Amino acid sequence: MRYFIVYAHPEPRSLNGSLKDAAVQALEAAGHQVRISDLYAMGFKAQADADDFPARDSKERLFYHRASGDAFASGALAADVVREHEKLFWADVLVLQFPLWWFSVPAILKGWIDRVFVNGLAIGVPKEGTKQWLRYGEGRFAGKRAMLAVTTGGREGQFSERGINGPIDDLLFPLNHGLFHYVGMAPLRPFVAFQTVRTTDEEFQHMRARYIHRLLGIWQDQPIPYRFENGGEYESNGILRAGVAEGHTGFRAHCV
Amino acid sequence: MRYFIVYAHPEPRSLNGSLKDAAVQALEAAGHQVRISDLYAMGFKAQADADDFPARDSKERLFYHRASGDAFASGALAADVVREHEKLFWADVLVLQFPLWWFSVPAILKGWIDRVFVNGLAIGVPKEGTKQWLRYGEGRFAGKRAMLAVTTGGREGQFSERGINGPIDDLLFPLNHGLFHYVGMAPLRPFVAFQTVRTTDEEFQHMRARYIHRLLGIWQDQPIPYRFENGGEYESNGILRAGVAEGHTGFRAHCV
Repeated sequence: MRYFIVYAHPEPRSLNGSLKDAAVQALEAAGHQVRISDLYAMGFKAQADADDFPARDSKERLFYHRASGDAFASGALAADVVREHEKLFWADVLVLQFPLWWFSVPAILKGWIDRVFVNGLAIGVPKEGTKQWLRYGEGRFAGKRAMLAVTTGGREGQFSERGINGPIDDLLFPLNHGLFHYVGMAPLRPFVAFQTVRTTDEEFQHMRARYIHRLLGIWQDQPIPYRFENGGEYESNGILRAGVAEGHTGFRAHCV
Repeated sequence: MRYFIVYAHPEPRSLNGSLKDAAVQALEAAGHQVRISDLYAMGFKAQADADDFPARDSKERLFYHRASGDAFASGALAADVVREHEKLFWADVLVLQFPLWWFSVPAILKGWIDRVFVNGLAIGVPKEGTKQWLRYGEGRFAGKRAMLAVTTGGREGQFSERGINGPIDDLLFPLNHGLFHYVGMAPLRPFVAFQTVRTTDEEFQHMRARYIHRLLGIWQDQPIPYRFENGGEYESNGILRAGVAEGHTGFRAHCV
């Protein structure tokens, strides 16, 4: 299998960096192919702006979404974005690996998301012969699997069902559902390492083993069963039909 | 009153940019003082990295959280971050204004959050005479108010209680609760403009009036009533006490 790990930590000697190194080693030892986008090492440009469309008339008002669709269609996107597309198409599995900062991805990884998942590729893809869009379960990345791999200094209890930070699965919903599921990838339950400060050697060994186990098992595990937008459970306006998840609201209503 | 608007849109002639201009004009006309951080115009550095601590020994392993605390304590943070702190201390009201990209802030604004809310200022502030932290309702920014101002091309129904994107209030919880409430600011309900594509003049006038009304009314409106971590409703491990929000889980359990 082909694994594409997008890794966003500023310090190679960090716990997060060690987990990444261990992942590459274990995946390759098991016969898999691995490619890494080490966003900090690459100096990946975080801010989405007009420079992403070098062929565009820079005096015109920028509609970023529209411009990204035009540039994608005409093969005129910035070269660093095109290289990420090649890796995405190559991969069977996408892993986003990052430390949780302010309950979300670091800015450099948000920039990778903002700039790479362009109009025409990940959004705004019409479903032929219908008035529907290929999204939320369908799309150009269908057939691929995706997983978040997260480290946090916070304790697990704080991220539990009644913990003050909010449940970790709800905090990650915008990525698992709003990104992976949106573009058609099957999202796996995230790998999360809590309380990654002053980790003992033994704790780290355990964490590493757990991560590798998840990575190697990604095709055996069951994806998060989010509902498909075009699967008959939503009205054409994107609202759950009466009778589906009756009485339920919020993120969890979108899970079977 | 003093309003500090952090604005993150790459195109000054955008709908979002026009809302920002209108806000400044209306606030000043009403006698308020306004400062803007126009992140794109400033070329604000998005990625949090070792360059944020110019006085640090660059050969040492970077613990970003620890290094930010050291640099804050010794007055050795990067100059652009210090300037943002000055504006935050100056302000009575903080507004984060942005287009919703992939259900969150644009990378450049995430970078502003990651880099500005450093250890010792916004996190890791001990509560004197206790073993508690000043956070989630308490902190150095107590007494200030904060509001998100968001534009999105999506339709309101898609962000409703049973809409496929998830409820907008839940999507914004990591900012309202995880950032504003965390650092002690009182979060107001967000201003959200939906379906901002091909907006008619009349729709825009209405949107603008609604935004200005919210900005001017910020001291009359009731903040979102999130529970205080040190208010007696949480165990010392950050989990809601039995009897509080009995039977409730998830983000909403943290709202009174």
